[in-house]
Amino acid sequence: MYTRIMEISPWTLRSAKLEKEHKRLQESLTSLGNGYMGMRGSFEETYSADSHLGTYIAGVWFPDKTRVGWWKNGYPKYFGKAINAFNFSKVKIFVDGQEVDLAKNDVAGFSVELDMQHGVLRRSFTVFGVRFNVCKFLSVAQKELAVIRWEAVSVDGKTHQVRIDSIIDADVKNEDSNYEEKFWQVLDKGVSDSLSYIAAQTVANPFGVEQFIVNAEQTFAGSFKALGGSQTDWQVSNSFESEVGSTPETFEKRVIVTTSRDYQSLEAVKAAGRALSEKIAGVAFETLLDAHKAGWLHRWEIADVVIEGSDEAQQGIRFNLFQLFSTYYGEDARLNIGPKGFTGEKYGGATYWDTEAYAVPLYLALAEPEVTRNLLQYRRNQLPQAQHNAREQGLAGALYPMVTFTGIECHNEWEITFEEIHRNGAIPYAIYNYTNYTGDEGYLAKEGLEVLVEVSRFWADRVHFSKRNGKYMIHGVTGPNEYENNINNNWYTNTLAAWVLDYTREALAKYPRPDLNVRADELEKWADISANMYRPHDEELGVFVQHDGFLDKDIRPVSALSPDDLPLNQKWSWDKILRSPFIKQADVLQGIYFFSDRFNIDEKRRNFDFYEPMTVHESSLSPCIHSILAAELGKEEKAVEMYQRTARLDLDNYNNDTEDGLHITSMTGSWLAIVQGFAQMKTWGGKLSFAPFLPSAWTGYAFHINYRGRLIKVAVGKENVVFTLLKGESLDLQVYGKDITLDGSHTVALEK
Amino acid sequence: MYTRIMEISPWTLRSAKLEKEHKRLQESLTSLGNGYMGMRGSFEETYSADSHLGTYIAGVWFPDKTRVGWWKNGYPKYFGKAINAFNFSKVKIFVDGQEVDLAKNDVAGFSVELDMQHGVLRRSFTVFGVRFNVCKFLSVAQKELAVIRWEAVSVDGKTHQVRIDSIIDADVKNEDSNYEEKFWQVLDKGVSDSLSYIAAQTVANPFGVEQFIVNAEQTFAGSFKALGGSQTDWQVSNSFESEVGSTPETFEKRVIVTTSRDYQSLEAVKAAGRALSEKIAGVAFETLLDAHKAGWLHRWEIADVVIEGSDEAQQGIRFNLFQLFSTYYGEDARLNIGPKGFTGEKYGGATYWDTEAYAVPLYLALAEPEVTRNLLQYRRNQLPQAQHNAREQGLAGALYPMVTFTGIECHNEWEITFEEIHRNGAIPYAIYNYTNYTGDEGYLAKEGLEVLVEVSRFWADRVHFSKRNGKYMIHGVTGPNEYENNINNNWYTNTLAAWVLDYTREALAKYPRPDLNVRADELEKWADISANMYRPHDEELGVFVQHDGFLDKDIRPVSALSPDDLPLNQKWSWDKILRSPFIKQADVLQGIYFFSDRFNIDEKRRNFDFYEPMTVHESSLSPCIHSILAAELGKEEKAVEMYQRTARLDLDNYNNDTEDGLHITSMTGSWLAIVQGFAQMKTWGGKLSFAPFLPSAWTGYAFHINYRGRLIKVAVGKENVVFTLLKGESLDLQVYGKDITLDGSHTVALEK
Repeated sequence: MYTRIMEISPWTLRSAKLEKEHKRLQESLTSLGNGYMGMRGSFEETYSADSHLGTYIAGVWFPDKTRVGWWKNGYPKYFGKAINAFNFSKVKIFVDGQEVDLAKNDVAGFSVELDMQHGVLRRSFTVFGVRFNVCKFLSVAQKELAVIRWEAVSVDGKTHQVRIDSIIDADVKNEDSNYEEKFWQVLDKGVSDSLSYIAAQTVANPFGVEQFIVNAEQTFAGSFKALGGSQTDWQVSNSFESEVGSTPETFEKRVIVTTSRDYQSLEAVKAAGRALSEKIAGVAFETLLDAHKAGWLHRWEIADVVIEGSDEAQQGIRFNLFQLFSTYYGEDARLNIGPKGFTGEKYGGATYWDTEAYAVPLYLALAEPEVTRNLLQYRRNQLPQAQHNAREQGLAGALYPMVTFTGIECHNEWEITFEEIHRNGAIPYAIYNYTNYTGDEGYLAKEGLEVLVEVSRFWADRVHFSKRNGKYMIHGVTGPNEYENNINNNWYTNTLAAWVLDYTREALAKYPRPDLNVRADELEKWADISANMYRPHDEELGVFVQHDGFLDKDIRPVSALSPDDLPLNQKWSWDKILRSPFIKQADVLQGIYFFSDRFNIDEKRRNFDFYEPMTVHESSLSPCIHSILAAELGKEEKAVEMYQRTARLDLDNYNNDTEDGLHITSMTGSWLAIVQGFAQMKTWGGKLSFAPFLPSAWTGYAFHINYRGRLIKVAVGKENVVFTLLKGESLDLQVYGKDITLDGSHTVALEK
Repeated sequence: MYTRIMEISPWTLRSAKLEKEHKRLQESLTSLGNGYMGMRGSFEETYSADSHLGTYIAGVWFPDKTRVGWWKNGYPKYFGKAINAFNFSKVKIFVDGQEVDLAKNDVAGFSVELDMQHGVLRRSFTVFGVRFNVCKFLSVAQKELAVIRWEAVSVDGKTHQVRIDSIIDADVKNEDSNYEEKFWQVLDKGVSDSLSYIAAQTVANPFGVEQFIVNAEQTFAGSFKALGGSQTDWQVSNSFESEVGSTPETFEKRVIVTTSRDYQSLEAVKAAGRALSEKIAGVAFETLLDAHKAGWLHRWEIADVVIEGSDEAQQGIRFNLFQLFSTYYGEDARLNIGPKGFTGEKYGGATYWDTEAYAVPLYLALAEPEVTRNLLQYRRNQLPQAQHNAREQGLAGALYPMVTFTGIECHNEWEITFEEIHRNGAIPYAIYNYTNYTGDEGYLAKEGLEVLVEVSRFWADRVHFSKRNGKYMIHGVTGPNEYENNINNNWYTNTLAAWVLDYTREALAKYPRPDLNVRADELEKWADISANMYRPHDEELGVFVQHDGFLDKDIRPVSALSPDDLPLNQKWSWDKILRSPFIKQADVLQGIYFFSDRFNIDEKRRNFDFYEPMTVHESSLSPCIHSILAAELGKEEKAVEMYQRTARLDLDNYNNDTEDGLHITSMTGSWLAIVQGFAQMKTWGGKLSFAPFLPSAWTGYAFHINYRGRLIKVAVGKENVVFTLLKGESLDLQVYGKDITLDGSHTVALEK
């Protein structure tokens, strides 16, 4: 734990401190999103000290020129970025002519509170004798709508003149633009006494990538009096004012954001914004807020995980689910789950293998199957681009990208782009996971096989036969452990590649697809590769070897390091990290997690005991996998430690980088740790099973899952586990290895 | 061979073709330099099509902000660049008001000729009825002086009005500036009827690197009439005109370039320029030219290698020596030998390990010992910076940089900067080489040991002990073969590291240095590391293994590739190159070359026969080492093929990249191939030996060497080898393994 700045509370993140030193961290933690758009929790008012203003709109991105030192063949031509949209929440507030600027003012009674249950951010502060209460939400009932309300009341017995300039500012840059260029150009703007708007477009690019148009229109409500509007090249503004005494006065800013992703022309984008503003013109603030709250309450009905006995743990998982659903709730099949969601700019791109490996299992259980199917279909739709990526590397078949918006690779480090090819196993794995979880083989038979065949062709071309060893090998890869790269025969990658070839052959046998033109000699070759794939293994240690040469390292545990050495990625030179034995995230263990039914408990224990002590968990994707395996191995303390770390990764700023944004795609980790870890939910071979344990510090926990048409509640208490079928037909499942038929409610004694 | 655009001739490069398509290639090949400054052979007149104007001044550089995708700890903060100085050779010529622009004009009688014997570039062309003969040289008699003379004569019977605007243009960018920024700001300029000047300074930088001031002043001679001067923000110009009839008229531009490297203030830089202009004001063109020519003739007296029977080979070696000496002739101990010299911008930096590995042997033989000692002292002076580099990587001792101006690493790829650490062996090797060649142990005992001890401390910290193998290993390196990187236990690196530790211990035993505080336990550790260093070796093949895992590759020869695959670096994706068995340049064989006296002929043959067929020689440093070893192994055809490739690398554009500039540091290769290869000159243990052969297509070759106070001529003919002692005391040497005492002239029959 590095920094905890928010109070512990089951449903809220609250702080009474104006965090000047940790401003960016507080902004990250108080981010809001509704799947359509989102923003960091920066103040709307002027804040003249360090801060990262960030507003992002899903699917609106820009292909920034790639920045590398020395160009080499095959390098991606651009680095796609979720771009900082224009700042439509901006205001300037003046009290008796003095500007509100919390970086400079004498501030009293500051508080900020994120209400996760209802998706509302509230702030309060007193300056110049006036108390301001600010309430903000991005509506989940009307995705285009952002509402911010200021309530002002005098607290010093005097009457104050308060003026608010409500601004839309298109003069915005990405913090990480490679060449400090602007990505926006203003197309149109307009101002009247009662509204103003800006329509802007992403600037032209030489890569043939779509230029997006975004329109933001602001209208107003409340008791403040309109003074008129104004504009500059990059801004529109409306001014309001009020005499503020002991009765609260309110100013409400309503912004409608529409884009060319939904409407085809500038005129249509503007007209849609206009129409939506009209639609809410007469609607009261409370009505808008209630509709929004209802949406969040509905989400929590299924998704909530209740933890008794630890508010820290409770807050952690709710924060993760809140931020995850703020990023993606499956409504738009064109979208995916970016690693920072709407909370920061780092990493660029929208889609990583995180989605398939870490998010799919959660969405399978908490959403309708269509949501996961949309995530799979997203990749199927990008198959031509994946074929293009493979061709760029001189290889057959399809190589899914490490980072992308469109399917074209857009990361810019060769050791990632060219070598971290294990993603081409995770994407088939998600097809397998979906098929296995839902029992729906229709996707596999149709779109799934189209993906599998092309991915198999890639692997068959990417391996080489080592005559000396009589084995197929995969050289020059980067495994999930990015603290090594350009390694040979990564056990995880080799294992996954062979599995893809097998799974594809089996699926083709079951669902013949003559249209895919898989030749008999191809199938033979795939069988030969899988049968003769080199899978590094050490007899003496009884472990799978992370890659050739790993055991030659200076093997030692993380505990041998000084605390000053951690986190390695901030303390050590890159070369020193690379040649060390320290592991960023599950690598061999990721493979064991994926194929947990194929390894026995001794194999799991030996590998866990060998690798986990060398693991620094500096990837946010690491702790959950270790928590799940530790739980299965009965290492309850380790399982809980790892849960804590995944659940409160951002809340406690474990990796000292949350100021850059939240770790959205790893937020599924705490849910996975509880459901697949503590409760040991497994779904192998279409058979649902559980083997729960209760962390000793807790008194109980409960969650829901959707499973093949049923809604099931699982409640783990100090003595019993209660399974309740809330919806759907009765179901056979296994608990602690024993078969039960669930119909209604079923109580099983907790095994200790 | 990709493109040969210049005619074959022993002393000149000539072409009668205006190479519009290969303009940059022609510019590279016709570069001029005098060690102090240099320029590509771009036309001085307007040329409105593709061209790379480049003028460079030794030691004047700029720390450009590093450009990488993802910053990691330890990355260098800047990328040092030899910057394009301002263009002081520029003119605009108008014939009867029409501008001379060879890209657009109807041109007749074009020719360009580089006279390598005298260091003069001549061009001729006829446009608009006027024939122009242009003559240019950068004086080796007065380093600050550049002279360009135009002779104009009417060839159509008419009289033409010819105007020449003589310009100094500071509005210049580097082609490879990372952020398209300018590196120059104008400090002062002035214009009169008879002269003009610009003084400019490199712009400020945040890295504490010196800002250089450069002043260029132009004065004039000849029969053209002065019209007056003019200036703009970035330029100064003087105009001249003449009626040109059938009698030649001449215009002469004389530029004096002075810099803050030699003078401390702007005023002093300008005053020095002024004084030098004054000094030559009354001196005739022919006098200036004769002094320059005499300088080059003097250089050739010792350096020339005469080849009989092959003008191609003859032209090749002379071109290489000419361009090498144009870059560096040892006059300025603050300088080193940049990989592109004054002929291009690619690679940046000034100093690579090329100097120690490839240039030192040549300068040892062709120059006084002081020149090599200056090259060694250059590194000694940068020891504090090398210590800084090691500290940046969290390591003890000193790590010399891969690329530098000041000793601080300034390359920007982690796989090079952090991992290509074998350079920390080449630098000690040069000390060894100097000591062994000259017999002077004074440098080793004093400055040499200071370097050796700190480099040894680096290696002792950089190795790790692999408990499993009971051996010291070096993981995470890039060997000389840059077509693989981040490999473990590169045989070359491990061998060199162990040798450094031994050599340092031996030298310390001979020349105790209590001031260096080498502890007894350090010495013991060094001895233990060397004794237990892992040196990969394959019993079955009888070869040293390039690195762990190399033999697991899909081993096959270059001959198995299609010609369409070559050069790999232009045809294959980077990842495909990395995992292929194909080798860029000598790696194991580089080590065998360095320590040729420690390997028997069978070891040499087995390794050569194993590695050479997989080598694509896409580094300009590759062919010479292979030529030398092939010669020793009696593989005369291969030796000659490799000689041809090193000698005519740029002339025949073998690697299809000469348009970016010449491969200056590898130009020693053709000399090494003849002297260390064909003539088998060896100097192990202070004993000079030869075993010459004569390539079958040649009728003879001859060269000189300086050796321990002697000047010796070696002439190899069809029947005999004649050794002549031109200077110094008599000397014992070995020829074909037999001792002879050289005193006067000695003839030995050529062994065939």
